[in-house]
Amino acid sequence: LIVVTQKDVRIEIINEALGFLNERELQPRTIRWKNQLLLLTNRNLSSTDLDRLNDLGVVERIVSPTQKAQLASRDFQTDGSVVKVGNVSIGSQRLVVVAGPCSVESRQQLLQVAHLAKRLGASMLRGGAFKPRTSPYEFQGLGETALRLLAEAREETGLPVVTEVLEPGNVDLVAKYADMLQVGARNMQNFSLLRAVGKSKMPVLLKRGMMATIDEWLQAAEYVLVEGNHNVVLCERGIRTFEKVTRNTLDLSAVPVLRRLTHLPVLVDPSHATGSRDLIAPMAKAAVGAGADGLMIEVHPNPDSALSDSAQQLDLGQFATLMEEIESFSSVAGRRLR
Amino acid sequence: LIVVTQKDVRIEIINEALGFLNERELQPRTIRWKNQLLLLTNRNLSSTDLDRLNDLGVVERIVSPTQKAQLASRDFQTDGSVVKVGNVSIGSQRLVVVAGPCSVESRQQLLQVAHLAKRLGASMLRGGAFKPRTSPYEFQGLGETALRLLAEAREETGLPVVTEVLEPGNVDLVAKYADMLQVGARNMQNFSLLRAVGKSKMPVLLKRGMMATIDEWLQAAEYVLVEGNHNVVLCERGIRTFEKVTRNTLDLSAVPVLRRLTHLPVLVDPSHATGSRDLIAPMAKAAVGAGADGLMIEVHPNPDSALSDSAQQLDLGQFATLMEEIESFSSVAGRRLR
Amino acid sequence: LIVVTQKDVRIEIINEALGFLNERELQPRTIRWKNQLLLLTNRNLSSTDLDRLNDLGVVERIVSPTQKAQLASRDFQTDGSVVKVGNVSIGSQRLVVVAGPCSVESRQQLLQVAHLAKRLGASMLRGGAFKPRTSPYEFQGLGETALRLLAEAREETGLPVVTEVLEPGNVDLVAKYADMLQVGARNMQNFSLLRAVGKSKMPVLLKRGMMATIDEWLQAAEYVLVEGNHNVVLCERGIRTFEKVTRNTLDLSAVPVLRRLTHLPVLVDPSHATGSRDLIAPMAKAAVGAGADGLMIEVHPNPDSALSDSAQQLDLGQFATLMEEIESFSSVAGRRLR
Amino acid sequence: LIVVTQKDVRIEIINEALGFLNERELQPRTIRWKNQLLLLTNRNLSSTDLDRLNDLGVVERIVSPTQKAQLASRDFQTDGSVVKVGNVSIGSQRLVVVAGPCSVESRQQLLQVAHLAKRLGASMLRGGAFKPRTSPYEFQGLGETALRLLAEAREETGLPVVTEVLEPGNVDLVAKYADMLQVGARNMQNFSLLRAVGKSKMPVLLKRGMMATIDEWLQAAEYVLVEGNHNVVLCERGIRTFEKVTRNTLDLSAVPVLRRLTHLPVLVDPSHATGSRDLIAPMAKAAVGAGADGLMIEVHPNPDSALSDSAQQLDLGQFATLMEEIESFSSVAGRRLR
Repeated sequence: LIVVTQKDVRIEIINEALGFLNERELQPRTIRWKNQLLLLTNRNLSSTDLDRLNDLGVVERIVSPTQKAQLASRDFQTDGSVVKVGNVSIGSQRLVVVAGPCSVESRQQLLQVAHLAKRLGASMLRGGAFKPRTSPYEFQGLGETALRLLAEAREETGLPVVTEVLEPGNVDLVAKYADMLQVGARNMQNFSLLRAVGKSKMPVLLKRGMMATIDEWLQAAEYVLVEGNHNVVLCERGIRTFEKVTRNTLDLSAVPVLRRLTHLPVLVDPSHATGSRDLIAPMAKAAVGAGADGLMIEVHPNPDSALSDSAQQLDLGQFATLMEEIESFSSVAGRRLR
Repeated sequence: LIVVTQKDVRIEIINEALGFLNERELQPRTIRWKNQLLLLTNRNLSSTDLDRLNDLGVVERIVSPTQKAQLASRDFQTDGSVVKVGNVSIGSQRLVVVAGPCSVESRQQLLQVAHLAKRLGASMLRGGAFKPRTSPYEFQGLGETALRLLAEAREETGLPVVTEVLEPGNVDLVAKYADMLQVGARNMQNFSLLRAVGKSKMPVLLKRGMMATIDEWLQAAEYVLVEGNHNVVLCERGIRTFEKVTRNTLDLSAVPVLRRLTHLPVLVDPSHATGSRDLIAPMAKAAVGAGADGLMIEVHPNPDSALSDSAQQLDLGQFATLMEEIESFSSVAGRRLR
Repeated sequence: LIVVTQKDVRIEIINEALGFLNERELQPRTIRWKNQLLLLTNRNLSSTDLDRLNDLGVVERIVSPTQKAQLASRDFQTDGSVVKVGNVSIGSQRLVVVAGPCSVESRQQLLQVAHLAKRLGASMLRGGAFKPRTSPYEFQGLGETALRLLAEAREETGLPVVTEVLEPGNVDLVAKYADMLQVGARNMQNFSLLRAVGKSKMPVLLKRGMMATIDEWLQAAEYVLVEGNHNVVLCERGIRTFEKVTRNTLDLSAVPVLRRLTHLPVLVDPSHATGSRDLIAPMAKAAVGAGADGLMIEVHPNPDSALSDSAQQLDLGQFATLMEEIESFSSVAGRRLR
Repeated sequence: LIVVTQKDVRIEIINEALGFLNERELQPRTIRWKNQLLLLTNRNLSSTDLDRLNDLGVVERIVSPTQKAQLASRDFQTDGSVVKVGNVSIGSQRLVVVAGPCSVESRQQLLQVAHLAKRLGASMLRGGAFKPRTSPYEFQGLGETALRLLAEAREETGLPVVTEVLEPGNVDLVAKYADMLQVGARNMQNFSLLRAVGKSKMPVLLKRGMMATIDEWLQAAEYVLVEGNHNVVLCERGIRTFEKVTRNTLDLSAVPVLRRLTHLPVLVDPSHATGSRDLIAPMAKAAVGAGADGLMIEVHPNPDSALSDSAQQLDLGQFATLMEEIESFSSVAGRRLR
């Protein structure tokens, strides 16, 4: 349950309310949410407890979301959230295209993609610096070197940068260079990491775990939100099923389902979902049709020589074609690309 | 392996070729495919066997598809198939919308939907007469009564009719009234039924089994094709995953994957996939974006009182809105609705 | 809801009760269940309706199972069912081992396996005559020839025979030769077939669909039971998951779950589940530990040359070893093999 | 590829070999494995490269495992590993039962369970101190307080203690109190954590991710092994499927599959897999039948009041019964409980 407090209420009164809720074993916590102070409890209040809070004069309004994901819920915030990353607004009328290579491999590779992405109307740049790899013998990313290159690409193109962070101990390092922190699919329920990116107050891109229900995904987002960080964007990237032709099964119905359940913006990543270059364009258009706020697309100057995920990265020409196709779908969907 | 025979080859020569292939244990069968005669074998021929066939003068060309689904394969037929159902062409530039109630419940119910569907630009009418129900205690459909009503609705509206057939013994009965036979998800690997609808030479709508890989689906289609019935349309309707918010997970990536592997047209059924009224419109638009040849939509004058699947049927107003939205997506996708 | 009628109630009274229940739109049906007559309705009765039935004097007792699977439910019958197949009792203290080749391929192949199976303590013989194959180009079974060989093997060994039936039109043919009809995984929701094997009154082995929930499986069994055929045995054979090392994932927890929900006996088929010879013995022992009433094991004199499923069939020596190992586990599990 | 070096080879020679392999871009690394030094490369060597190494005199033998999981592979080490945790040997003839509450809740709760577990023949004590919970509003564990209680319980009973560690920054803290570090299902691909527990050299219990393939699981183990920590035990705890009656689907076939692929010991956790008290005993016996090296069982003095996972914890009487039943199965399986 969420108590939205009155704006002018004194701190002593808040403390009194907290003390009272603690006595009732409601495990209250306060959260600074945009320009308001919230009191969260772990279950609903009885009417007498509610009367007591009202008597104290702390209550502006009470929200009792049906989901376990309280702050993420549409019941708590009916308007869609807009998350600002640099000069880009995710969740606005603009369809946000995040483009870039799977891994940052070299200065030239990254800058070439970044400039093209900028020119073609992409809004943000992606690129892996720390790579979570199934095997310890696979390429693990260039680390801080890659972060520096990403920052340089941002300077040159003006595109804000998103990159993955793998552990709580690296959040500060990544936050120094990037504009948005990505929590990858394998870490969706790495709760320590979620808390750490929550505390950073940086914009967070939270990918769906490949085995995660939508309900669990929203509760993972809640770990970030409850730290007072409301800048969370969700990214559908495919779930694991029995089908073997595609790397994963892109669950596009997650887009309208999330629209119903949460106010958080939703991106779609057709590259990881399909694992196959020729499926990216149709699934990108499908994602726009389903109502996504944006797309995440892997682009590489020479995919066949990529150090990771070569089968699913577009080359520059394919990306240019994709952007044209998406533009017309965007406008029918009530969005604009630029 | 498929041998496309020369058009003017005499039957005695074909028989000699068959005899020879039989000796080689290649299990040959002949199939009348459109205006040609094909010889199919169960494995590739050696070069000496091939020489022998060439000497006989039967070979126009040899196709050796990589898939087990030989006749369904793009390797065999590179152009997309167009399946004619009455006056409707599935696989053409027109986006085919098949609309109608889950079950035929009454004359009034069906005609009301049929007339509206016709007026709004739908191409075909659907409606269940024989219903495959999880429980023997659930409504099992009106049977032949429903078939008669479907035929009447076709007379009144001109919309060709598709309805499900559940067993080999009923194929003739259903074929008497309907224009297209549907094989439902639960029967996708009911091989006796597949052979029976194959022999009927009627157009067949083959839904994907909820546990079927795309590979298995194409091999199921092959059971129909190998009877010489090339009028097969595939319909993606959601697969079973761990996600519980939606009834099934609509696998839209199946659309471009099928486009790559087969020449058969592909419809998408967002009603069964999502099981939820508010998800149908976004997923229908997504399906158009993914490149589907058409949509199958459940519409009911009064969904809440429907005898089956009430949560996933649109009412008439919702369907009208959906058709408008789809129209603009269709045109961007290079399709037209009427 | 199930009304167990009094034993001496006159048919006129039953008819009056049926008429009354029909008026109430309760869709009543009568079923002869062992030595009693049951009235089934599609929903619960109001207390006044119940009073009326009591006044008529038809009610011995009322059962209101919580599952949709009424007759299959433990709530209806608390004692475990014992299904007799020839001289074999499935669901008794004896662990029933059904052994035999995937497909019947020749007289010699079948008789060799049958004699060995008999000698080693197997209770029943299996062998496919009509094979449901993913591709139309794969071996489809020897049909009636195989049925005749199975009958001959039974004459020679005394082992009752189970074999699969694929379509309603073949039930009589298969029933002429076999002692038990198998409905395979792909046909678990082939409701026409379920009704047909129900009407035959023959013992039925109902395999779990590879994507079927336990709940759906029990409702499929209900289709057989509701025809008055109480001789149903369930067989877990693996479900489809994302794991690729094994052909399917054997869901052994289904055994105790079914024990809780239903009175029907449960076999386990580790051959199809694992698809791999070296996994059969450990999973057979695990199945005994989980409480299965029996096992279904594929055995072939020369697995590597088998016409179907060669990787998962044991050779005769491996089967002999397996039987020894199972014997000691059986006795710890309170069962005996012979 | 793994080069097992000769025991008496000088460090200068090793360095020369490393330099050479580096030139060849084989990304060599050295690992101290038990009493030998290994050189690992990221791919196979050409025969000329191999000759060069032989000339240097470093090679004792070369192993080229077929799996990506090199050190975990049976190809590398054919004998099963035995992992020592305190005085307990996992992978030996003794069936190791790890028992204890889901979460440590109080001194009394833990000690009561620990003493009973000891008395009944359990080998180790479990208990959650840091709990990974789906929702931030759920009980997150008592933290270091719980660790201290676990250490106290070990002092009193002599049972070694295993408990979960959630983040790299906590490895030292948990290692101070526990005898074995658990990496939970949600963290199976938390590669930072895997490296950290690898570096600790403590015994590690690596649970299978609920959507992890066996192949991915072994590669996750490889992250620990490649740090030179060979004390890894795997624990199957159920995978996520479409089935809803059970919390997860216990994949017991993983036990013999792992036996074939790896030398690492394997435990089975029927509590988390089934999520249901009455399913634990049958699945524990099944696990013994499948060949597991041990079991992990949740036990609580009063499960209904447990702060987490109350439905799946046994009470003390149920645990006592379970231990009796397991004892007889163990002996048939060639194991002993004490």
